[in-house]
Amino acid sequence: MPSPVTRALEIHLKSRPAGLPNLGNFERVETRLDPPQPGQALVRNLWISVDPYMRGRMVDRESYIPPFQLGQALDGAAVGIVEQSADPALKAGDLVVHFSSWRSHALIDAATAMKIEADAMGKIPVQAYLGALGFPGLTAYAGLRRIAKLQHGETMFVSAASGAVGSLVAQIAKLMGARVIATAGSDDKVRWLTNELCIDAAINYRDNPDLGAALAAVAPEGIDVYFDNAGGNHLEAALAAANPKARFILCGMISGYNTGSAPAGPANIFLAVEKRITLQGMLVSDHVDLMPDFLRDMSGWISDGHIKLRDTVVHGLEKAPEAFIGLFEGANVGKMLVRLG
Amino acid sequence: MPSPVTRALEIHLKSRPAGLPNLGNFERVETRLDPPQPGQALVRNLWISVDPYMRGRMVDRESYIPPFQLGQALDGAAVGIVEQSADPALKAGDLVVHFSSWRSHALIDAATAMKIEADAMGKIPVQAYLGALGFPGLTAYAGLRRIAKLQHGETMFVSAASGAVGSLVAQIAKLMGARVIATAGSDDKVRWLTNELCIDAAINYRDNPDLGAALAAVAPEGIDVYFDNAGGNHLEAALAAANPKARFILCGMISGYNTGSAPAGPANIFLAVEKRITLQGMLVSDHVDLMPDFLRDMSGWISDGHIKLRDTVVHGLEKAPEAFIGLFEGANVGKMLVRLG
Repeated sequence: MPSPVTRALEIHLKSRPAGLPNLGNFERVETRLDPPQPGQALVRNLWISVDPYMRGRMVDRESYIPPFQLGQALDGAAVGIVEQSADPALKAGDLVVHFSSWRSHALIDAATAMKIEADAMGKIPVQAYLGALGFPGLTAYAGLRRIAKLQHGETMFVSAASGAVGSLVAQIAKLMGARVIATAGSDDKVRWLTNELCIDAAINYRDNPDLGAALAAVAPEGIDVYFDNAGGNHLEAALAAANPKARFILCGMISGYNTGSAPAGPANIFLAVEKRITLQGMLVSDHVDLMPDFLRDMSGWISDGHIKLRDTVVHGLEKAPEAFIGLFEGANVGKMLVRLG
Repeated sequence: MPSPVTRALEIHLKSRPAGLPNLGNFERVETRLDPPQPGQALVRNLWISVDPYMRGRMVDRESYIPPFQLGQALDGAAVGIVEQSADPALKAGDLVVHFSSWRSHALIDAATAMKIEADAMGKIPVQAYLGALGFPGLTAYAGLRRIAKLQHGETMFVSAASGAVGSLVAQIAKLMGARVIATAGSDDKVRWLTNELCIDAAINYRDNPDLGAALAAVAPEGIDVYFDNAGGNHLEAALAAANPKARFILCGMISGYNTGSAPAGPANIFLAVEKRITLQGMLVSDHVDLMPDFLRDMSGWISDGHIKLRDTVVHGLEKAPEAFIGLFEGANVGKMLVRLG
């Protein structure tokens, strides 16, 4: 007979960050969860995802997604195991992807969870559903296929390419037959991109303040597609290097997430007129209809070794704020994850 | 028997402007033209077009169109009358649109000229082929129909709406059933837009430095399409007012054409991600395939009184530099034209 209440640990947003978040913006809170009501399940989290977009939710403003509330647990994607269920769709022991992260246990609506299977062949770890097989992967897949319609033989430039989305953009673009140029923030990351992921050229943007010149040097033929995760001088360099009718996917602009005032916009935006560039903003939530195709393709690519998985893992829920802050300090290669328990 | 040589006056680019062009950047030169060779015609110009895009051609750099050369006549769209022809497609007295403007007479390749007919009903003056029935009109038509795919009931915002392109954008958008919001640089222009062109709301941007607030006040429902002729703070205000999945046509950015250094880019470009905005640069030269549809529709609209023509006319070739400079000083309402002879 299940215990009537479950003790849970949660990470709450204590104060809204100004600039780069710090540990004082977060608070560890113990709470108690009642047994699940009909339609609910009690889940113990195994892995939680921290992602740059969460910084935007720490600002109290109207946006595409509600802001985090002070004094409440943060949320986002997580992989958990069902401990108790009051819904016929889930049973104890099931693995699920759900959206009540930043806590040890959660009561979730069973209808909002996606049941996943542990891979019998052992090639796909469950945490891949937070990265390559999750929203970061779908973002890369939808951006390149549906928005940019990247073609074989084109040159694709991606910023923040050592990150969760960027490293998948780079690899999928290679599979699509593109020449791939990438940026990252350290020599180690650049080596990983070129040696392990076989990207055609990678630039350490910290060593190249004149990013336009560095990009022109490795892309003398210009770029046809730019996948923007960085904004700022990356976007300017891409506008300068773009070929006529280039397509830009505006996915994230991490360079501006922690600037107190508004960051500088791209001073050469007029090149978009002269070169007839299309810049298209994207949110992955518009593309969940692609999920079946995506899961089929991506599972195959991972199983075949065409997509290499890499995570940066931080251990323990109490380290989640540190993991999150690390996203803006270049601490991760591949997907940043927090492992619980 | 035609005289063996024709005396012509030309306006040459004497020096490349830094910032706003001045009269000293131009030079009036007398020259002599030989009789036309086979395939050529000698044309006397009646109307010449001066357009903001010409400012870009005064800079010596690689672009979508070759730069003007120092010590040579400037060029662009003109309406002329054939005086001598050595090509069977043209005969003396024919009216043509061609691209050897900024001069009294020109030797043109007959194959590059478009023959036009004087309107028997008197509703379409020949100079309309430089404005509503010319590239400015086609720009507006292609931008709204092909690029933005403006829908009935949507809200469309256009900057520099008293100019050649903007005034046609505003009127075509009304014909397409949109709510139209526009900016212009004087109260007289604002009154013309609202009283004569029946635009739903117009803003004098010079009186409203906080253009975002002014736009929000007249478009509380947000904007679905933005037709950008201005760049700068207009583009920022449009990003702020945009509805999810808004479409932006980047057509011109006159606010930046005469700034010595690079103008500031839109500081809120990240809103393009959150709102999934598509920003698409356009050049009219990509859309000449629409010319037959465009000429049919626009001729009908003009004849029916649905599109009102308005020109600002400067008299005399020697005044062409003044007319051109006036484009950046708000001197024109509607199309700026130079009438010769």
